[in-house]
Amino acid sequence: MSISPSLSEPLIGDLTEVAHALADAAGEAILPYFRTAQMQTENKLEGGFDPVTIADRAAERAMRAVLAHRRPGDAILGEEEGHSPGTSGLTWVLDPIDGTRGFISGTPTWGVLIAVGGADGPQIGVIDQPYIGERFIGTPHGVWLHRNGQVQPLRTREPRPLAQATVFTTFPEVGTAQEGAAFAAVARQAMLTRYGMDCYAYALVASGQVDLVIEAGLNAYDIQGPLALVQAAGGIVTDWDGGPAHAGGRAIAAANPQIHAEALAILRREMRG
Amino acid sequence: MSISPSLSEPLIGDLTEVAHALADAAGEAILPYFRTAQMQTENKLEGGFDPVTIADRAAERAMRAVLAHRRPGDAILGEEEGHSPGTSGLTWVLDPIDGTRGFISGTPTWGVLIAVGGADGPQIGVIDQPYIGERFIGTPHGVWLHRNGQVQPLRTREPRPLAQATVFTTFPEVGTAQEGAAFAAVARQAMLTRYGMDCYAYALVASGQVDLVIEAGLNAYDIQGPLALVQAAGGIVTDWDGGPAHAGGRAIAAANPQIHAEALAILRREMRG
Repeated sequence: MSISPSLSEPLIGDLTEVAHALADAAGEAILPYFRTAQMQTENKLEGGFDPVTIADRAAERAMRAVLAHRRPGDAILGEEEGHSPGTSGLTWVLDPIDGTRGFISGTPTWGVLIAVGGADGPQIGVIDQPYIGERFIGTPHGVWLHRNGQVQPLRTREPRPLAQATVFTTFPEVGTAQEGAAFAAVARQAMLTRYGMDCYAYALVASGQVDLVIEAGLNAYDIQGPLALVQAAGGIVTDWDGGPAHAGGRAIAAANPQIHAEALAILRREMRG
Repeated sequence: MSISPSLSEPLIGDLTEVAHALADAAGEAILPYFRTAQMQTENKLEGGFDPVTIADRAAERAMRAVLAHRRPGDAILGEEEGHSPGTSGLTWVLDPIDGTRGFISGTPTWGVLIAVGGADGPQIGVIDQPYIGERFIGTPHGVWLHRNGQVQPLRTREPRPLAQATVFTTFPEVGTAQEGAAFAAVARQAMLTRYGMDCYAYALVASGQVDLVIEAGLNAYDIQGPLALVQAAGGIVTDWDGGPAHAGGRAIAAANPQIHAEALAILRREMRG
């Protein structure tokens, strides 16, 4: 949660502006394809259901065009086009449509994920939901929800016991059987478990609405935007061993260190068993 | 899907207007409480988690006040205040906040459910999501999405095999073990299964975005608004035996008779087994 020394005040301001421009460009590219009958999907992974849409690709192209103009020295890691090297030491991590399953079902819980940071991981993160018109953005200066021209500061929840907590997940849709069982061990002790919200669940942690998101099988581009957002709001995001989560894999995003520790102890015990 | 002879053209017009007024009143009552830290919940059923909010009650009061003024002879069945008899032969069925678990988690997938009809079941149905600003309304004249001052006609999907279909459910959150297993038998044959969307899933069937919603443990007020909406859009809603669903219990909402028959055959086989 410390501000990287490489990010000066003017640089934070510039990167924040560019993050907004990226989200604007992605939303414009995607929305014409949302809930249209014409939308085409194809299987990216043989055997698995991993729909990729025209919108996904159009949005990444649009974001890369913005970066080529505004931040030509930065590296880019994008879901669709992979890694492009840079010279500045900063990397933009882009997932044009996180929650493609939700997208092709018409649910407004997918999001455009944007992150930027140095070698230590992302310092600025965005979850943008252009159909609803909500943009959650976290920077070293704080976290805000932009909606209907209004800007509202956000903060994660105060500590409460797991027995009074709400936990979100994409299980049973993803993860191995052992990972699913470990998640279920946490869920059994929580007050309320909810499913199917895609990246929107992380925005709810950052907004102080819920306590935990627990997932597995993530890619770096799935987690970096949400990670930066939740951490900027006062939360903590790690892998299931308490280590860095920004490379992907298993992740737990928590509203505060107390609930993080309580849930992590259960996950560790179950994964050892 | 036939128009009840009791609903004349002027009556349909009047009831549609009143349905809009009810949704307006409910949304105004609820939104001040959505995502606020001050929201209080309490357990309505001992042992189960069935949160009732101040917003829920305020919204039903607001809707009953509209009906007392505009339709004093109609009966009312409301989630919060139960049944109030009428003299007109028509009954309004109101669920001020369907998806209270989603509501207390901050997800914008709860809805205000409104239905009205005679002894044969509901003829007009509304799913209103006031935070997003989407109102889905079905009448004997068709189905429309009202959003941002625009009105878009909707229709359910054309038939496709279950192997290419998307199915929504609130399992694993509700239902018995046997019901859950029957649902899983359908889900295994579907292309995509999604969870956690509350009443919003029915709006997606009516919108032609998805093929099936399968649920259990419903009350009459949970299903009547969605049922009227989906049927007005060309879909079919029954219980798991193919009989009427408007009294609650187990429900299957399908985009068309073909996918309904394919899924129903699996549910019946599993429930017998």
